[in-house]
Amino acid sequence: MDKKDIIQKLKNGEMKLYEVDKHSSSTEKAIDIRREFIEETTNTKLNTIANYTLDMESASKKNIENPIGTIQIPIGVAGPLKINGEYIENKDFYVPLATSEGALVASVNRGCSTITEAGGVNARVIDDKMTRAPVIKAKSGVQAIEIKKWFEDNFQKLKKIAESTTNHGKLLRIDPILVVGNYIYPRFVYSTGDSMGMNMVTIATEKVLELLLNETNAQLIALSGNACVDKKPSSINLVEGRGKTVVADIIIPQEIVKNKLKTTAEAIVEVNTAKNLIGSAISGSMGFNAHFANMIGAIFLATGQDIAHVVEGSLGITTAEDRDGDLYFSVTMPDLPIATIGGGTSLKTANESLEILGVAGSGNVKKFAEIVIATVLAGELSLMGALAAGHLARAHKELGRA
Amino acid sequence: MDKKDIIQKLKNGEMKLYEVDKHSSSTEKAIDIRREFIEETTNTKLNTIANYTLDMESASKKNIENPIGTIQIPIGVAGPLKINGEYIENKDFYVPLATSEGALVASVNRGCSTITEAGGVNARVIDDKMTRAPVIKAKSGVQAIEIKKWFEDNFQKLKKIAESTTNHGKLLRIDPILVVGNYIYPRFVYSTGDSMGMNMVTIATEKVLELLLNETNAQLIALSGNACVDKKPSSINLVEGRGKTVVADIIIPQEIVKNKLKTTAEAIVEVNTAKNLIGSAISGSMGFNAHFANMIGAIFLATGQDIAHVVEGSLGITTAEDRDGDLYFSVTMPDLPIATIGGGTSLKTANESLEILGVAGSGNVKKFAEIVIATVLAGELSLMGALAAGHLARAHKELGRA
Amino acid sequence: MDKKDIIQKLKNGEMKLYEVDKHSSSTEKAIDIRREFIEETTNTKLNTIANYTLDMESASKKNIENPIGTIQIPIGVAGPLKINGEYIENKDFYVPLATSEGALVASVNRGCSTITEAGGVNARVIDDKMTRAPVIKAKSGVQAIEIKKWFEDNFQKLKKIAESTTNHGKLLRIDPILVVGNYIYPRFVYSTGDSMGMNMVTIATEKVLELLLNETNAQLIALSGNACVDKKPSSINLVEGRGKTVVADIIIPQEIVKNKLKTTAEAIVEVNTAKNLIGSAISGSMGFNAHFANMIGAIFLATGQDIAHVVEGSLGITTAEDRDGDLYFSVTMPDLPIATIGGGTSLKTANESLEILGVAGSGNVKKFAEIVIATVLAGELSLMGALAAGHLARAHKELGRA
Amino acid sequence: MDKKDIIQKLKNGEMKLYEVDKHSSSTEKAIDIRREFIEETTNTKLNTIANYTLDMESASKKNIENPIGTIQIPIGVAGPLKINGEYIENKDFYVPLATSEGALVASVNRGCSTITEAGGVNARVIDDKMTRAPVIKAKSGVQAIEIKKWFEDNFQKLKKIAESTTNHGKLLRIDPILVVGNYIYPRFVYSTGDSMGMNMVTIATEKVLELLLNETNAQLIALSGNACVDKKPSSINLVEGRGKTVVADIIIPQEIVKNKLKTTAEAIVEVNTAKNLIGSAISGSMGFNAHFANMIGAIFLATGQDIAHVVEGSLGITTAEDRDGDLYFSVTMPDLPIATIGGGTSLKTANESLEILGVAGSGNVKKFAEIVIATVLAGELSLMGALAAGHLARAHKELGRA
Repeated sequence: MDKKDIIQKLKNGEMKLYEVDKHSSSTEKAIDIRREFIEETTNTKLNTIANYTLDMESASKKNIENPIGTIQIPIGVAGPLKINGEYIENKDFYVPLATSEGALVASVNRGCSTITEAGGVNARVIDDKMTRAPVIKAKSGVQAIEIKKWFEDNFQKLKKIAESTTNHGKLLRIDPILVVGNYIYPRFVYSTGDSMGMNMVTIATEKVLELLLNETNAQLIALSGNACVDKKPSSINLVEGRGKTVVADIIIPQEIVKNKLKTTAEAIVEVNTAKNLIGSAISGSMGFNAHFANMIGAIFLATGQDIAHVVEGSLGITTAEDRDGDLYFSVTMPDLPIATIGGGTSLKTANESLEILGVAGSGNVKKFAEIVIATVLAGELSLMGALAAGHLARAHKELGRA
Repeated sequence: MDKKDIIQKLKNGEMKLYEVDKHSSSTEKAIDIRREFIEETTNTKLNTIANYTLDMESASKKNIENPIGTIQIPIGVAGPLKINGEYIENKDFYVPLATSEGALVASVNRGCSTITEAGGVNARVIDDKMTRAPVIKAKSGVQAIEIKKWFEDNFQKLKKIAESTTNHGKLLRIDPILVVGNYIYPRFVYSTGDSMGMNMVTIATEKVLELLLNETNAQLIALSGNACVDKKPSSINLVEGRGKTVVADIIIPQEIVKNKLKTTAEAIVEVNTAKNLIGSAISGSMGFNAHFANMIGAIFLATGQDIAHVVEGSLGITTAEDRDGDLYFSVTMPDLPIATIGGGTSLKTANESLEILGVAGSGNVKKFAEIVIATVLAGELSLMGALAAGHLARAHKELGRA
Repeated sequence: MDKKDIIQKLKNGEMKLYEVDKHSSSTEKAIDIRREFIEETTNTKLNTIANYTLDMESASKKNIENPIGTIQIPIGVAGPLKINGEYIENKDFYVPLATSEGALVASVNRGCSTITEAGGVNARVIDDKMTRAPVIKAKSGVQAIEIKKWFEDNFQKLKKIAESTTNHGKLLRIDPILVVGNYIYPRFVYSTGDSMGMNMVTIATEKVLELLLNETNAQLIALSGNACVDKKPSSINLVEGRGKTVVADIIIPQEIVKNKLKTTAEAIVEVNTAKNLIGSAISGSMGFNAHFANMIGAIFLATGQDIAHVVEGSLGITTAEDRDGDLYFSVTMPDLPIATIGGGTSLKTANESLEILGVAGSGNVKKFAEIVIATVLAGELSLMGALAAGHLARAHKELGRA
Repeated sequence: MDKKDIIQKLKNGEMKLYEVDKHSSSTEKAIDIRREFIEETTNTKLNTIANYTLDMESASKKNIENPIGTIQIPIGVAGPLKINGEYIENKDFYVPLATSEGALVASVNRGCSTITEAGGVNARVIDDKMTRAPVIKAKSGVQAIEIKKWFEDNFQKLKKIAESTTNHGKLLRIDPILVVGNYIYPRFVYSTGDSMGMNMVTIATEKVLELLLNETNAQLIALSGNACVDKKPSSINLVEGRGKTVVADIIIPQEIVKNKLKTTAEAIVEVNTAKNLIGSAISGSMGFNAHFANMIGAIFLATGQDIAHVVEGSLGITTAEDRDGDLYFSVTMPDLPIATIGGGTSLKTANESLEILGVAGSGNVKKFAEIVIATVLAGELSLMGALAAGHLARAHKELGRA
């Protein structure tokens, strides 16, 4: 079938968008046909979407359906950013950040410069896991408790089953196993190596549940019961952790706080208390920080992470302490789902961004986690400094009035 | 200075990344130099990042600092999606979704197909506003109450000042004005037209605060006090709304639920109750839905929205009801910050995506909001149907065992 | 019928517990019969429950069904506590606290002593209201928005209807009116004078809803839709306030912190940040304080408040600031439902407790609110001081080790 | 010293309230003197507070300081309530409820009657523990992780130390150990037998921390770091449980729903979804139930539990399901701190209430937990039925209009 015919059939509703591929000689042709159909139907010209350089042949196998081209978002770099980690020995990084929000890269860059001058940020991975929690239904609360016990009693067997479905995943524990009335929410906790692991844990968990359904009269309501919790903000993830649980901190000497951030440790501490702690508390906010989401969004986008994971990945707490004029500053993120292989990381631009950081491919995900949280600290420090400096500037102006 | 010299100076630390521009003859040259420096320093080849077609001259003025090229993410389209809105009269849309998560577009597409066959989804904007809440410090609780009263008593004057800074913004109210000890968090509520409005409301609020600092002895701690709440999940935004507050719903006849989703209204209702309501409740989750974040992430990315706003934008609640076998299904999103002008929407690929939807430029943001929530409903319906179908399939298998 | 016969009928299931009254010559006799029946059935001796001095004749009309006697809980007094309020001019109080938790009164007393030496605590009522939010069902989201608009458009009429049911209540506003899918949750906000007001606002709201059901095809699902929010912890009450919204604070000179609390402002600030702010944040707690519930429980019990309101009434935030060695300390409670008339306040022991405070009867509830929060501050200060002193003591010991 | 002298000294400020005891010949005399002083100072007559029959000699040793008498609150009984538990074999109970809120006992009683007619409520204890989580400070995040590891590595040793301080307590685990920046919050989890256990776990934990302070350079900021979480509503307690984690449920045949509750399973399910689940979700409430706090408050008060624990104890979720016209109804409470020995349970009226239930003294706390949750279900069912019946009544009226 030639292009015209296909487009005509799409218009008539005789063909579905996803059927274009099998009638086209190549992925690129299918992309062009679909895009032209969209252009004609919506009376638009999609020249820049069309003008991509990504390998869409590969992308259309794993990453996208009904493709018509690509989006492009500018990448800027911030750095050098000196990091001391468990997987990084006092090394400088240039961090690629994809964003369309002006001033974000500049702000992170200012944080990097402050950090590097102060000798570098310390970053550590506290914990590492991926979770899946189905919802199961029993006839009654009494039976729900029996199902809970079934999971506890059969753990070794279930572990074997789960791990039979994967090369890299390990079932670490099933904990907690929540019971609400006659519903049971067992939270399967896995280690998943360098991939983010959502698919892996879903497949492994589904396999385990087959045994449950065979051996008991429990009913599976849904493979995910929202106690995982995937892509939603939740306290259970703050408490239990999900993805990487990471912490970063630094002590910035008084002089550097003054010269680079134009403020004082005392002023930053007050902004942190009034805004990030008390302001978030009274607003019922789950984010006790200034803007983790900005850095997480930009680094996730640059490196091919799942954008929906920005919701979880940006949760966390900022602390600040005045140590005799020097500033102790920390950021903690309990729920950072990231990967260096699989998913969007295989797209070429994302992969190049991972290469800039030296973390493309297997064996690198914890190093990557250290870089991510170090970058978050840089951006958070920069904004907190700016807010505090505004505060100081005004205080000076006010004093001047007297 | 020629390229080699600049790169050498960058390596020596004699030049900063952002200083490259002023020593380069064009933005593109500066981009190339920076990227080559990164390539040399990190021993990488950034061929695809380099191979962009976006107008980086323009982007580097408003959207990015220290650019080295662009990220590319595939765009797929889902549709046709029939929408009945206040701003859309029963029209079909093809929705551009930028994502690297395989199966997402296909899943949304299945939802679109179900919806369209059922006659279309109803979408409405309930409310529209943007907020900024600084944190202010008084000497005492008593003074804090006086500052609260000052805002109430001077509202008309403050409104005039705020609106003097903007062509499109209107200060609607300052509410609530939270007091915690000697801190005050007045929440400035604006209408901001077709731009997302964060910058506008920040500038307007800062201007208002000048008068406060002149007329009282209050102290400004930070221009944002985290009661806004920007880019963090929060209850205050669920209750008060932020950005667009939107709702969409549909009734799907029993036959279509059966044929398209391979399940029943009853099964979808049970998944919704056990997973989205009870599962989220016991997990302390703020997201009472299955995966709003996936659709919000993909449509935000395609259309140039601020990716960090996925955190807020994906909050919301799914409801489902069995109406004599037919399925009533709704999604509500109280906190959707979006724009059709400004920010990332001016990047060419994003703008083309907005054009596909017929919402590029001014006067379109509420229409765009209706499309966004309709798309969220499509994706949510599809996943909920799939989970419920799995559940039914298993129930059948179980019965077969007997 | 004589006692024996009645008890026999109760045992046989021929009579219900609540039917005893109509077969007894007095309330006291009915109480005795019921209690004897319980004693015989459960093989117990309830001598102290039997040995009450409360006027149960009166109580059985308004406060209790199926009474068998009374519980007794010790009342201790803490004070003098010097308070400066809007309704209290620098006056000393002795606060009655009913509790069985040893050390609580002593601890509050230590706080009172510290406060009084420092010149007294400042207390203020920021806001005062009671709320009721039914849940209403429309056919669709579109209709739900129309119902929302109906409430907005008819407010003056609805206000008249609501206020026709009460002498003291005023309908201040209906705000927010939350929409989730096809459900509507209008939050009716009333002023209720000196009574706590739950019954008043329920009756008034029910009357208003009659008009809704007559004029629209909306359906009332429940008179309370849990957006009120009554007797459950909630963010909406933190943000919007419920009952009395109150704040209290004090500056305690360095010497008094040292002599009375055996610690420093700096140490108390650190405990507050690490425990009340960060500790609560990471735990997903809604209470950013150390133990408001202890004081609220004891004063509610002493003064006849509804014990279930301890849940709401104990929500709130503690702040602390080191002002050059002096301690600024505040407590804020957004959601304090209290009364000086009606409900349990009419029981004689409760009424005597209110009389100790000079707030029994009408016209006193805001004065009472100031006393309650002042007492909360006393207890909170005392515990925070003790925790900080422990911390200091240990720090000294540690230094001693060196 | 005679009474007059003491009162004069109290008035002059030459004596403190707590010093009265040592100048009095008996506890009762001291109580009288203190009360007379209060009467004179506040110009009141405290006849009913004075007229107690409780053994205040004993109470003043363990439960109260500065006593002046007792509060009296009426106790009513609800029942018979048939319960099937793990510790109760299909037995009827009369439940003592202390309250001043008219209609509460009657409402619970209606629930008991419905339950008993339907064959009884099933009640189970899922888990049982008490927790204490201090906040500890390290120099840095890196050191905080080392402290976390120290707890993990030394668990057996710490367990021995903790258990050396108590006859009944067992240290089960330290989990989770939360790290935020340089702060560590190890959550010590104990079993505590029949006492509520707060004092026990505090003493044991303090002992453990001595070793920490000796062996590391960590600093103890506060013995409680608000991750326990004691007497505040929190997600960590919902997820991890605290006190008793309990569930109760029942299936009520259609006929009984109709005859006793005047409604249908379908209507109750809709009220539960719209109010307890969606209404609580949109309001940011942590209580997904109608009024657990009312029953918890009344039974805690009657049986001498710590009233401040109503805050935690009333958290939980109600579920309802329409099983072909029959009603499945459940309540789950993850965080119920109760005791049958110690604290307020030793006061005579409280002890008599425990005796009515057959749970006074050691070995009974899990049986008591089953009774408590069964009572909560009775009250919850009754109110949910009433709300649903109102809804039906109105629906009928509406139909009648047509």
